[in-house]
Amino acid sequence: MKLYQLAPSPSARRVGIFMKEIGVEIESVHVDIRGGANLTEEFLGKSANGRIPLLELDDGTYICESVAICRYLEATSDPLPQSLFGNGALEQAQVEMWHRIVEFQGLYTALQAFRNISGVYSDRENCVPSWGEESKARLISFLPTLNTQLASHKFIAGEHFSIADITLFVLINFAKNIDVEIPEELNHLALWFKTVAARPSVQ
Amino acid sequence: MKLYQLAPSPSARRVGIFMKEIGVEIESVHVDIRGGANLTEEFLGKSANGRIPLLELDDGTYICESVAICRYLEATSDPLPQSLFGNGALEQAQVEMWHRIVEFQGLYTALQAFRNISGVYSDRENCVPSWGEESKARLISFLPTLNTQLASHKFIAGEHFSIADITLFVLINFAKNIDVEIPEELNHLALWFKTVAARPSVQ
Repeated sequence: MKLYQLAPSPSARRVGIFMKEIGVEIESVHVDIRGGANLTEEFLGKSANGRIPLLELDDGTYICESVAICRYLEATSDPLPQSLFGNGALEQAQVEMWHRIVEFQGLYTALQAFRNISGVYSDRENCVPSWGEESKARLISFLPTLNTQLASHKFIAGEHFSIADITLFVLINFAKNIDVEIPEELNHLALWFKTVAARPSVQ
Repeated sequence: MKLYQLAPSPSARRVGIFMKEIGVEIESVHVDIRGGANLTEEFLGKSANGRIPLLELDDGTYICESVAICRYLEATSDPLPQSLFGNGALEQAQVEMWHRIVEFQGLYTALQAFRNISGVYSDRENCVPSWGEESKARLISFLPTLNTQLASHKFIAGEHFSIADITLFVLINFAKNIDVEIPEELNHLALWFKTVAARPSVQ
């Protein structure tokens, strides 16, 4: 297998931490996204969403979308003591629920803020700076929801570390790009961040 | 179990079709979202994202986020001949991949277009009409990707009907609200839509 990616991107970081957590190593191929290497016809023929990370299986099948890649890697690894997608129907639903909340209200909102404010991809997309600012404001007003959940739970989806924690960790790090940090009063979120930052998988 | 929802919303439609496909019936409770019934402290104490649909289990546990609800309902139903999330590692990854593509580039983009252009929730959120128009343009330019995939596959994630088809069907119907319809030249997408529209679950 090969993993096509752009090392500093949040999606690549997400898959990278996930792989370390489940003990999987794959050959990595750098794709120069900012230089437009993902806009070639060759790349678009491989990646259904035209994006990285992109996993190439040994039979030439391609899987894009970071969460789909994580699911595939976990399902094809040796049975794990604790699945990062949750064990059993209820926990799996709770991981899915919190992961979606963190993705839609968190990471995706932060990405829209960053791309529309910075104009980093203005060579290939129309940017709307006022939407960037609105997204940033929404991200800031979303953080207390996370703090409330972490006041009574060790991890964001419950008592076990899950993919939702990985996405949240990537989000908090990425948010620095739009000058958003954990406010002092959200102490449960801050403590959670410190705990996760100490895991070997994120070093 | 009880399902709190707003009948005409895309999310409720998604869960509704999913339940019919797997043969599950649950008591439904109408929530007057446009009247702000989801903004009360009581509701926010139940729904982690403050939104519907919201599933109440018999023990008083709540699950929000439509895809998390679908996962829970499928996992707790009798074993199904064909899971709507895919069977086996590769198919599950392909369903996840296409579902995410359809959600992020499709349904979520259409929702942002609709909310920002129509201002339907301008009593509780800042709308940016130019982002609404940009989202609409991005949705239109995304449709050929779906057509290409459906040129060589019976359903959007492959040869089996999946939750990705349900979300895509809901998207195509919802897009009418922003005057987006399947263009005539995307004949594979149009044929797929006709096939899915004939399923008993969507009647």
